[in-house]
Amino acid sequence: MSEDKTWETKVTDIEPNKIRLRGYPIDNLMGRVSYPEAFFLAIVGELPRPGYRKILDAILVSSIDHGVTPPSANAAMTIASTGNPLNAAIAAGVLAISKFHGGAIEGCMETLAYGVVRVESSGMSVEEAARKIVIESKELKQRVPGFGHRYHSNDPRSLRLFELAKEEGVWGKFTEMAVAVEKALFENSGKKLPINVDGAIGAVLLEMGIPPSLANAFFITSRLPGLVAHIVEEKSTQKPMRRIVTADAIYTGPPERLVE
Amino acid sequence: MSEDKTWETKVTDIEPNKIRLRGYPIDNLMGRVSYPEAFFLAIVGELPRPGYRKILDAILVSSIDHGVTPPSANAAMTIASTGNPLNAAIAAGVLAISKFHGGAIEGCMETLAYGVVRVESSGMSVEEAARKIVIESKELKQRVPGFGHRYHSNDPRSLRLFELAKEEGVWGKFTEMAVAVEKALFENSGKKLPINVDGAIGAVLLEMGIPPSLANAFFITSRLPGLVAHIVEEKSTQKPMRRIVTADAIYTGPPERLVE
Amino acid sequence: MSEDKTWETKVTDIEPNKIRLRGYPIDNLMGRVSYPEAFFLAIVGELPRPGYRKILDAILVSSIDHGVTPPSANAAMTIASTGNPLNAAIAAGVLAISKFHGGAIEGCMETLAYGVVRVESSGMSVEEAARKIVIESKELKQRVPGFGHRYHSNDPRSLRLFELAKEEGVWGKFTEMAVAVEKALFENSGKKLPINVDGAIGAVLLEMGIPPSLANAFFITSRLPGLVAHIVEEKSTQKPMRRIVTADAIYTGPPERLVE
Amino acid sequence: MSEDKTWETKVTDIEPNKIRLRGYPIDNLMGRVSYPEAFFLAIVGELPRPGYRKILDAILVSSIDHGVTPPSANAAMTIASTGNPLNAAIAAGVLAISKFHGGAIEGCMETLAYGVVRVESSGMSVEEAARKIVIESKELKQRVPGFGHRYHSNDPRSLRLFELAKEEGVWGKFTEMAVAVEKALFENSGKKLPINVDGAIGAVLLEMGIPPSLANAFFITSRLPGLVAHIVEEKSTQKPMRRIVTADAIYTGPPERLVE
Repeated sequence: MSEDKTWETKVTDIEPNKIRLRGYPIDNLMGRVSYPEAFFLAIVGELPRPGYRKILDAILVSSIDHGVTPPSANAAMTIASTGNPLNAAIAAGVLAISKFHGGAIEGCMETLAYGVVRVESSGMSVEEAARKIVIESKELKQRVPGFGHRYHSNDPRSLRLFELAKEEGVWGKFTEMAVAVEKALFENSGKKLPINVDGAIGAVLLEMGIPPSLANAFFITSRLPGLVAHIVEEKSTQKPMRRIVTADAIYTGPPERLVE
Repeated sequence: MSEDKTWETKVTDIEPNKIRLRGYPIDNLMGRVSYPEAFFLAIVGELPRPGYRKILDAILVSSIDHGVTPPSANAAMTIASTGNPLNAAIAAGVLAISKFHGGAIEGCMETLAYGVVRVESSGMSVEEAARKIVIESKELKQRVPGFGHRYHSNDPRSLRLFELAKEEGVWGKFTEMAVAVEKALFENSGKKLPINVDGAIGAVLLEMGIPPSLANAFFITSRLPGLVAHIVEEKSTQKPMRRIVTADAIYTGPPERLVE
Repeated sequence: MSEDKTWETKVTDIEPNKIRLRGYPIDNLMGRVSYPEAFFLAIVGELPRPGYRKILDAILVSSIDHGVTPPSANAAMTIASTGNPLNAAIAAGVLAISKFHGGAIEGCMETLAYGVVRVESSGMSVEEAARKIVIESKELKQRVPGFGHRYHSNDPRSLRLFELAKEEGVWGKFTEMAVAVEKALFENSGKKLPINVDGAIGAVLLEMGIPPSLANAFFITSRLPGLVAHIVEEKSTQKPMRRIVTADAIYTGPPERLVE
Repeated sequence: MSEDKTWETKVTDIEPNKIRLRGYPIDNLMGRVSYPEAFFLAIVGELPRPGYRKILDAILVSSIDHGVTPPSANAAMTIASTGNPLNAAIAAGVLAISKFHGGAIEGCMETLAYGVVRVESSGMSVEEAARKIVIESKELKQRVPGFGHRYHSNDPRSLRLFELAKEEGVWGKFTEMAVAVEKALFENSGKKLPINVDGAIGAVLLEMGIPPSLANAFFITSRLPGLVAHIVEEKSTQKPMRRIVTADAIYTGPPERLVE
């Protein structure tokens, strides 16, 4: 076999009794870095700095579930309902996380990054760049991705993520641009279209150096436990191949409780 | 619409500006519990006790990647290579995590649980129950799932997971049974078939009260970052629709380095 | 590379400007055999005899669609609705065709084959074997797969398939067993549980020598055009990421018309 | 429930004991139209004219399989190899049929349609429009989709499909444009880049009024039997979770034979 058939991978090096992710032996990582940090290492190539740890956990917790109505939950339950194993039901849920479901994270990241480029290259102020974004999307009759929510008027998850981001020092030109766009949207329309969880995740991911093309990896990973929970519930409490009308679901789980 | 069309869900309660997972507002969880703890909450229904936090992270880190050769990486890269978006490539990788790839976790959990039931119901000693398991699988010409590895003679990930499990007090009758089976396998055959990473994860999951049917959810979540890393690498460094021969891959990433 | 790394395939032979399926050049097959005959060739290894041609077409037409309510249509529309390309939406529909959706074909084939084995090995009459099947499934509190339908009391597709099968001489011990089981079910319960389309397909597939393990390939292929039609309709007439309540769909297509 | 929640579907009408596809009772279609004709009916909304029957069969036969090396076969075998059921393995194969695998049909259709539009709107000759297509793709450093093949210098499937299309009168401005592009490519480069099977399918689909967006539905349906054949072979002749190196496969099936 000639040498030139080889191809390169920079992800993982395997030798007998040695598995190294981006150079780090996995047994060395275990107990020393968290799963979200190892996730960052796997896809970015380097470990995140210490301040990112809490934020990465918070991002992955923020979108962990949104009940039975999102298309991903619906698809996962439908595939579970026809008698498939867990992996197939998860795969169907993952397929649903696409342009119109979770895709606003990527769209928001591209919008904010473009605004920041404008500021840096043209001397435009942050406020001006934000106004341009709002005006241009109005002209195209498009919503600014990551702002407003069809159900939540003031998304508690985005508020909390921004609060944590400030505390941990993961705050800068991209999160500032997000705040400026929120303000510009209100000034332009008189309606409150606050940054939603997709938008807040997008802004914070940009602060950590994540490119827009990786946004969906965060949303899919975040939502995975929710998909599993709905699949398990479907299989253990419902008849096979029922017609799943999500609007007819009623919540009968524990009442509100808080982590101290 | 008559009341009896309704159906129950105990996972997530949604109201305007309120999203509660198993009762906990998600914004309350953010910054207070880690993603692996929220994962546990989502699928089990209750938050894990504090000692589990480090173990859950370690489990999810342990199987984060195993290079380009596993079927899940291969399937994910193949689907990426034909021009699909990230979600489809991840879905294909998830489909590969099945009976013969990751499935040993579930198999090992069932075996260990059966051994423990025997001890508790018949007064048999742990050593005797372990010997029975080994003899019975030999009679069926089957391997005991979770022991031995075709590549690693002494899997550093299982050693590290057991070390951490002892430190954190996640050690009991299931992990003891795993140790006894390892010993019985050696006595029976004279060959070392040490517990592998699947077996160690299985034993520790049982200690935390996870049922075997949920094992694959942990493996799929653990492997997700690895799948993403291979998908991104395929898309950014390789020509579309190439023939992917995993044996021809050479690792050109960072040399060994350690987290302190 | 040593010779022993090679592995065998008996499906297709490729040389420059030659593609042979099971030995037949594909350009030789084109225009001479129908797609359903080539399908049979691909999966069985030999071309069907001439009498099977019409039956294979009829089987693949019989399950081509069943409106928007089946889980496969629902999953395909859901994945289309979130902005995925055609292939991902089809893949999700295919995932839904499983144990409880289309799976009755395989179940019915196993039941009928078992009945025929009993007749041939024990000298039991067809009627007796059919009664045994009914009694045994009653004892197990299970339905006989392939009989009765939750919506159609007398499935016109099974009647038509059996009519064609008789005309084409694809009629024998398996279809006779199906008729006997239908009779035994009525005698046993006093309720009509006529053979449904899954059962009729199963009986006729057995007559053509298809094993039960291939049943789902026929159902998936048959349903593919229906999935595509629903995906195209969803994408071209509906807003993205809508909540799809199949019970609210109303049919507004052409009124009844007939092929002469 | 208010009336305005309803939504329209024009695909299939279901009543007890009546299933009508685009108005035609399915039992009326069975035995009277072929599966490819019913496929056309499902996705286009009307039955094809009689001359299309043979061509539809030929299109679906033309791409039925291409051995073990295409990504779709590889993905399907990989998922089968890890212990999944048939539906999951088919779904993975379907996911692989995307932009760079089968996608040339759609690309070729768009190119030919654009050439025809130019002729009709500008009075340009067919030859001139074809030359423009070649020159413009050269400027963009792109291949004209549907012409040339990395393995077959003269694809016997495209020759046969065009021969049948002429015989059946499915020949017109789109197929003529394809022939003109083939000639222009040769004149421009001195190299033969004959129309390949994707290109020939694309040209003939346009003649039948199929839009480019439906191209992939034909390729996926055509390839389905091939996927099933490889999945069945993998499951019945190979060890689970083997490393599948497609270059090491040797064909051991029947020698060349012909349908009279």
